[in-house]
Amino acid sequence: MIKFFEKAPYAPVEYSYDVEEILYKEKSKFQEIIVIKNPHFGKMLILDDVVQLTERDEFFYHEMLTHVIMHAHPHPKKVIVIGGGDGGTVREVLKHKNVEKIYFVEIDEEVINVSKKFFPTVSYGIDDPRVEIKIMDGAEFILKKKSADIDAVIVDSTDIIGFARSLYTTDFFTTLRDCLTDEGMFVTHSESFHFHMDMVIEIQETLKKVFPVVDLYTAPIATYPGNWWSFSCASKKYGCREIRRIPEIETKFYDSEIHLQSFVPERLYEKLLNKTLKW
Amino acid sequence: MIKFFEKAPYAPVEYSYDVEEILYKEKSKFQEIIVIKNPHFGKMLILDDVVQLTERDEFFYHEMLTHVIMHAHPHPKKVIVIGGGDGGTVREVLKHKNVEKIYFVEIDEEVINVSKKFFPTVSYGIDDPRVEIKIMDGAEFILKKKSADIDAVIVDSTDIIGFARSLYTTDFFTTLRDCLTDEGMFVTHSESFHFHMDMVIEIQETLKKVFPVVDLYTAPIATYPGNWWSFSCASKKYGCREIRRIPEIETKFYDSEIHLQSFVPERLYEKLLNKTLKW
Repeated sequence: MIKFFEKAPYAPVEYSYDVEEILYKEKSKFQEIIVIKNPHFGKMLILDDVVQLTERDEFFYHEMLTHVIMHAHPHPKKVIVIGGGDGGTVREVLKHKNVEKIYFVEIDEEVINVSKKFFPTVSYGIDDPRVEIKIMDGAEFILKKKSADIDAVIVDSTDIIGFARSLYTTDFFTTLRDCLTDEGMFVTHSESFHFHMDMVIEIQETLKKVFPVVDLYTAPIATYPGNWWSFSCASKKYGCREIRRIPEIETKFYDSEIHLQSFVPERLYEKLLNKTLKW
Repeated sequence: MIKFFEKAPYAPVEYSYDVEEILYKEKSKFQEIIVIKNPHFGKMLILDDVVQLTERDEFFYHEMLTHVIMHAHPHPKKVIVIGGGDGGTVREVLKHKNVEKIYFVEIDEEVINVSKKFFPTVSYGIDDPRVEIKIMDGAEFILKKKSADIDAVIVDSTDIIGFARSLYTTDFFTTLRDCLTDEGMFVTHSESFHFHMDMVIEIQETLKKVFPVVDLYTAPIATYPGNWWSFSCASKKYGCREIRRIPEIETKFYDSEIHLQSFVPERLYEKLLNKTLKW
């Protein structure tokens, strides 16, 4: 069987996967999009040689990216999802009945099209009437947004290189903060605890320049190098650890116990941010 | 640079590593032992084409395997370590001042010799006077042990195939239980949550036939396939979640917060054991 060798940035372990079939392989304006079929994971979406999701276990990432701040916020109605062209994050946000509006901002329309074709169980929420698709750069969208009426912003980007870098700057976090309501919350994935700790720390430090409340949690993602994946969240007011609405949605992995347990414990957090513990 | 391609059993992702240098490569009576040098992880110990430890991050595994039951037990004095020929687990057990005796039972003497030569920071505890080395099969050692005077048994085996299988049977767990004091505790690694859930469940079920108290915790190990690694613990009396002695030892990752947080939350545990959640 032929193999796909991942080329993940900064990963000291190279992952490879059996390829039963190459279902799609095209260059978009921004990146190469590949869909393969693997005997274990089912269909897999690959952007610029990095695995983005697999049919079998995408729920770990999408649930953990979405539901932590969505349950820490007391009543999220207006949400911005940046990136996540596959639609998995949008699907999870839509599970929250009080959500009235999602601005779904994806730079690469082709990812949406490919996901609609090959990953219907991931992408089915994209056509929901509450979703407004914006094909543009997420940082630009946030910059143009003048009113502070957003309850939650979720960044679901590729690895923090190339065009995704603009989503991790002080400028971006500042404009983002200014479009949130006083109760508003923000979350982004922030790479692997095992392999990218410098980046995790940098994102935490950058967020702290802008937000009074910043926190960090993790989830295990089998097909992201290092696996022990980090999520950085921030808000103007509310802590992200507290659950302000009883989870009533259907999920496979996320629940209120996982929510609480996913946060990095205080002593470890301190050691990491003080750089007294490195591996 | 040449690459080492891991051949981990049952893993749907293949891991590969850059090889700066092959430092050792020999067949012992039981397995092929390889030591390579990798630019990121430093020296790596490989048995039958499966990575066992890396200089850089072996502490995650050794600390989490050892210190949970060693702190759940109120005063562990006599300990059996089965496998772990590299000496990492023995090193961690020796950090506990009340420990008077360690039976270190390793089937393959060559692993001990290779570790002493190439991994001195891992193996240095092996020559401690409290350590009695037994070169033999762990199951056989336990079977021959007649008195019930052991406080803790730690199984640090290779993957659960081949000769390691004898360490995961009802018979083994029964003879093991009978060499423990009434307060005695047991722990073993039990493969990956992501890739070997059937095995995790099987080990939990087998332990439950033998021990009144059985539990399950996890730790993130970057170089074990699936990464989200599970540890199964059991006892005649004490829960493993409770900490019965304040941790006073020096560790990099393990501490009392990590101890509590590492256990699988109740609802997830129930779903897994009832097989209502699979991935």
